[in-house]
Amino acid sequence: MHKISFKNDYSEGAHPLILQQLLRTNLEQQAGYGNDSYSQRAKELLQEKIAMPAAGIHFTAGGTQANLLVIGHLLKPYEAVISARTGHIAVHETGAIEATGHKVVLVDAVLGKLTVQAVKEVLDTHTDEHMVKPAMVYISNATELGSVYTKAELTELSVFCRERKLQLFMDGARLGSALTSRFNDLTFSDLAKLVDVFYIGGTKNGALLGEAIVFAKQGLDEGFRYYLKQKGALLAKGRLLGVQFLTLFEHDLYLELAHHANAMAEKIAAAFEEKGYAFFLPPQSNQLFPLLPNAMIEKLQERFDFYVWHKPDQHTSAIRLVTSWATEEENVDAFIRCIHS
Amino acid sequence: MHKISFKNDYSEGAHPLILQQLLRTNLEQQAGYGNDSYSQRAKELLQEKIAMPAAGIHFTAGGTQANLLVIGHLLKPYEAVISARTGHIAVHETGAIEATGHKVVLVDAVLGKLTVQAVKEVLDTHTDEHMVKPAMVYISNATELGSVYTKAELTELSVFCRERKLQLFMDGARLGSALTSRFNDLTFSDLAKLVDVFYIGGTKNGALLGEAIVFAKQGLDEGFRYYLKQKGALLAKGRLLGVQFLTLFEHDLYLELAHHANAMAEKIAAAFEEKGYAFFLPPQSNQLFPLLPNAMIEKLQERFDFYVWHKPDQHTSAIRLVTSWATEEENVDAFIRCIHS
Amino acid sequence: MHKISFKNDYSEGAHPLILQQLLRTNLEQQAGYGNDSYSQRAKELLQEKIAMPAAGIHFTAGGTQANLLVIGHLLKPYEAVISARTGHIAVHETGAIEATGHKVVLVDAVLGKLTVQAVKEVLDTHTDEHMVKPAMVYISNATELGSVYTKAELTELSVFCRERKLQLFMDGARLGSALTSRFNDLTFSDLAKLVDVFYIGGTKNGALLGEAIVFAKQGLDEGFRYYLKQKGALLAKGRLLGVQFLTLFEHDLYLELAHHANAMAEKIAAAFEEKGYAFFLPPQSNQLFPLLPNAMIEKLQERFDFYVWHKPDQHTSAIRLVTSWATEEENVDAFIRCIHS
Amino acid sequence: MHKISFKNDYSEGAHPLILQQLLRTNLEQQAGYGNDSYSQRAKELLQEKIAMPAAGIHFTAGGTQANLLVIGHLLKPYEAVISARTGHIAVHETGAIEATGHKVVLVDAVLGKLTVQAVKEVLDTHTDEHMVKPAMVYISNATELGSVYTKAELTELSVFCRERKLQLFMDGARLGSALTSRFNDLTFSDLAKLVDVFYIGGTKNGALLGEAIVFAKQGLDEGFRYYLKQKGALLAKGRLLGVQFLTLFEHDLYLELAHHANAMAEKIAAAFEEKGYAFFLPPQSNQLFPLLPNAMIEKLQERFDFYVWHKPDQHTSAIRLVTSWATEEENVDAFIRCIHS
Repeated sequence: MHKISFKNDYSEGAHPLILQQLLRTNLEQQAGYGNDSYSQRAKELLQEKIAMPAAGIHFTAGGTQANLLVIGHLLKPYEAVISARTGHIAVHETGAIEATGHKVVLVDAVLGKLTVQAVKEVLDTHTDEHMVKPAMVYISNATELGSVYTKAELTELSVFCRERKLQLFMDGARLGSALTSRFNDLTFSDLAKLVDVFYIGGTKNGALLGEAIVFAKQGLDEGFRYYLKQKGALLAKGRLLGVQFLTLFEHDLYLELAHHANAMAEKIAAAFEEKGYAFFLPPQSNQLFPLLPNAMIEKLQERFDFYVWHKPDQHTSAIRLVTSWATEEENVDAFIRCIHS
Repeated sequence: MHKISFKNDYSEGAHPLILQQLLRTNLEQQAGYGNDSYSQRAKELLQEKIAMPAAGIHFTAGGTQANLLVIGHLLKPYEAVISARTGHIAVHETGAIEATGHKVVLVDAVLGKLTVQAVKEVLDTHTDEHMVKPAMVYISNATELGSVYTKAELTELSVFCRERKLQLFMDGARLGSALTSRFNDLTFSDLAKLVDVFYIGGTKNGALLGEAIVFAKQGLDEGFRYYLKQKGALLAKGRLLGVQFLTLFEHDLYLELAHHANAMAEKIAAAFEEKGYAFFLPPQSNQLFPLLPNAMIEKLQERFDFYVWHKPDQHTSAIRLVTSWATEEENVDAFIRCIHS
Repeated sequence: MHKISFKNDYSEGAHPLILQQLLRTNLEQQAGYGNDSYSQRAKELLQEKIAMPAAGIHFTAGGTQANLLVIGHLLKPYEAVISARTGHIAVHETGAIEATGHKVVLVDAVLGKLTVQAVKEVLDTHTDEHMVKPAMVYISNATELGSVYTKAELTELSVFCRERKLQLFMDGARLGSALTSRFNDLTFSDLAKLVDVFYIGGTKNGALLGEAIVFAKQGLDEGFRYYLKQKGALLAKGRLLGVQFLTLFEHDLYLELAHHANAMAEKIAAAFEEKGYAFFLPPQSNQLFPLLPNAMIEKLQERFDFYVWHKPDQHTSAIRLVTSWATEEENVDAFIRCIHS
Repeated sequence: MHKISFKNDYSEGAHPLILQQLLRTNLEQQAGYGNDSYSQRAKELLQEKIAMPAAGIHFTAGGTQANLLVIGHLLKPYEAVISARTGHIAVHETGAIEATGHKVVLVDAVLGKLTVQAVKEVLDTHTDEHMVKPAMVYISNATELGSVYTKAELTELSVFCRERKLQLFMDGARLGSALTSRFNDLTFSDLAKLVDVFYIGGTKNGALLGEAIVFAKQGLDEGFRYYLKQKGALLAKGRLLGVQFLTLFEHDLYLELAHHANAMAEKIAAAFEEKGYAFFLPPQSNQLFPLLPNAMIEKLQERFDFYVWHKPDQHTSAIRLVTSWATEEENVDAFIRCIHS
């Protein structure tokens, strides 16, 4: 029997509405390279959604690509980006940022979230031309550990970064899940005010592929289309990205899908709590890290796929469960039954 | 009235069969990053098609990306690639190859096609460490000027390159159109024998996006997946590329689509010839470059979109017309009527 | 017998005064990385010499290094530099500029000198994000072919570049020879007004090593010391460069040395002219390209070393002779006697 | 009064013998770019010294340059180098390694020295193409904290690296001080057997500038001269480096100078120990890190220059004192008197 996977949030294709819209518009002739009418309308819709009519919006294929494009575009050769040690750019992008020539300065974080104090310490020790010049702060929301930033936390970082002339960049590969978390009090327009650049992840929230990079500050994306082209990131049929983001944002499908992912995660989390299991990391979005006896893990593995994340001792492990827009409730129920049995 | 476009071969979406297959497989859970069963089967199918069971095959999103990945992967830092002055990497990729650190050494070509003589002259003048070390030859088939390589021409280049330890790389963004040209006598398996690496263009021949890079020589792609990831080219939902190439190659759809594009171009070319118009560049594939009186061009522009390519004198211009898998014969007929009227 | 070399202008060590100053200051304790008092004074002296008290001046070890540092510092990733096809960065730097990620756009030049017309043609054909964005013009003075720019020529380029927002960069590896040419009407302070950045070559004019990069416009060198360090170009004992430039410019030694090199070249040129030999390229500075019968060349080669540059026909070749600050007049006389014999 | 500096080992110029040799050979005509007879003889001498007649030896201007050249030359784009968190490439080179595209993976070390265990942990966590591929281990000897590797420690690392196909690279900016340390039991020829590539630092041990990179394994430096040229590291007057290394190694001057530096450090260390002061890091070479009461530090600062390194508490600080080949014993004695007073 094929196992049900909770390994990640990109195991399925796209939300059916997206495929319908691709089909419907398929044979229209459109301009290439993102100059099509769908990409245009999608950008306007996003500018409206974030309440920044002059924001520079660019669609790109994936998260690693978005990260290297933004960072490579905004930094001078000797400038560096500060990241949590657990940040995606620090761990799981095969040195993509370094390959653009920039150092990623790593700092300890709290449940995956950067603090002003950690950033400040980097500034305090990087004071002359013998060291890289920290010029950007990279954060993820939701983080790689499933946590989400509150408005207070983000504001504190934002104020500090502006004071110290650091650009603040939010990786939003899982932004939908962050903004629909029970712990969230941020809106799209808050983001556009508090960070300099962020991206709205489509790949992990219902699109076939695609992230929408938002340069909130006017002018920050000057020349960015050249950079996109140079890095092989300007799709000939840019409509593919435009149609998808238009579909995701025309009727708030984006947040609905993310809400579903979180709801499925909460249902599982509640079941673990009910059974008295603790969490290695507190559940806040669509990633769960319960601490389970190894016997329970083996039982679950018979029918379900997921990563074993951490082994604190001989008898117990933390696993990672990821839900998505496509997670079917009946599979969640089957999983919960398996916990209870 | 919306004009009919002959500007390029990526104005429409995908061949409907591709979208059907995406829909059909959409909700299956599959492994990410190209490890899905569709990508796997597509690779095997291509290995079979080129009669190289050990070929290394990797799917990527677009042509510029494929070019920079292949060249950046295979060259040492101080090595350079030789290209026709009209080569896509030389002109229309915003310095993507230079951005990986490599010089593109430009040479004159014959109708867009490289000659052994031109390559030899580069080797003769690049003899020590004060100049880059030429290590690769880049050709396009079909070329940027619509011409195609014959088996004799490609064999001559191949023999020379192997003698001189140059890698031979064929950009196949329009490979379908080349292999179905009336002037072609090459097969997929000839390519795999004669060049070291090539790619099979999907974007311009029926796919939503996607190129299949083929490393014909075993081992040449060692570590290439690391490089794909580092350059932001490894799609989380790699199935998107796998499903498309599987569809294109399961029933020879790929060559059928290219054949249609060429047939439409030939029909237009025949009409020009019948009317006595000359060609700036001889028609060989799905790109046509007729020389027309400016008055005729203006008349055509009322209903059709295309690029004016070259202005040899005050009264005449060469235009570029591109047909594709999606070009409807009725639009071709309308265009021809306009020539005749 | 050891042959006398006219192969280049870096066959000897340093002018003896320089070595004396290095000896005299050798055991003083000085700050590192160019923060020593000699570098400081040398910078002030150069600022005075060019009549730009706010110019940013940085010493570096060699010409290729200076070129890649300046270009890499001033260009954004997708920006390109325009160079004569014969430019040093285009030919003899092993792709150093491309290795910083930037394309060198090549144009035809007149005796090695760039024209406004050639630059304009590049701008006219580079109009969107599918091509690199030309942002800098690179010229050499003296050029690689021994020619020098007049004030009128440089002014024309300068005006055009400012109109079109191109940075103008002059490679001055042989600036001394240019400024002391009979054909020159430019001064150091003219340069500082007409170009955005240039360097004053020491290696080929009396120093052990060293070029003084001059950013004429204030602020253009912001962050440049970080870039120097990152590229391995910030010498721990920066005094080595400071002492040398101080010595070269304290008593106009720099121009005296260059004047000597030119005088020696003129003497040889006059001898060729007297004997009725033509020049492949008109003699203007310390590089001569006489056209000689091959028999004469063979006779000269018995006692002298030089490059054979070009072979226009079976009987005649152009050779390259280079004189320097260190060329002894008795060797020049011996060479002339050999022509006459 | 000018203070006596113990800030670093590059405050003075060159050992007088070196300047004498530069003067003596100054006006000889020599081939450029390291093809001069002095560089040639220096290479042969070093090959003999390390008992590796086929070793590839290349001279370069400084330590950061040597590091980026070696690492950039030997790694594929997606490969990374492992370094102690305190390694020079990790801290004080302004991201020079990352600027060649490579990630530096940081690990904890013991007094600046890498352990097999730390390297092993990196390998255990870097297992697929979503992370960089560790391919080289970087160590410094002496380390940035003044410690030195024993033969046993280096052998253990070497055996492990060869087993796991990691290249082992030793930064020898302070190699002289390491090899003449009381704690050392390694010879030059041991190094050549145990590491794949290392460099012999000249800048910090008597040269004006210069490091000798040694590729111990034949073939490892294939193409390296192209890379040197491309990175602006091939000096036109390469004789400047050749003459210096010839002088340093003809009569064992290199080790004599380093021995002097260590002897001066030991004399100071003995004085601190006699007075009962502890060390923040154990003294092993020419860098000392005594822990002193702040009042003592202030007294010393009246006449001497040095860095305050660390402030463990309110009353005490660790300072860094560096001695060199040029440290005069009378200054050491003055310093010691100041401690005792």
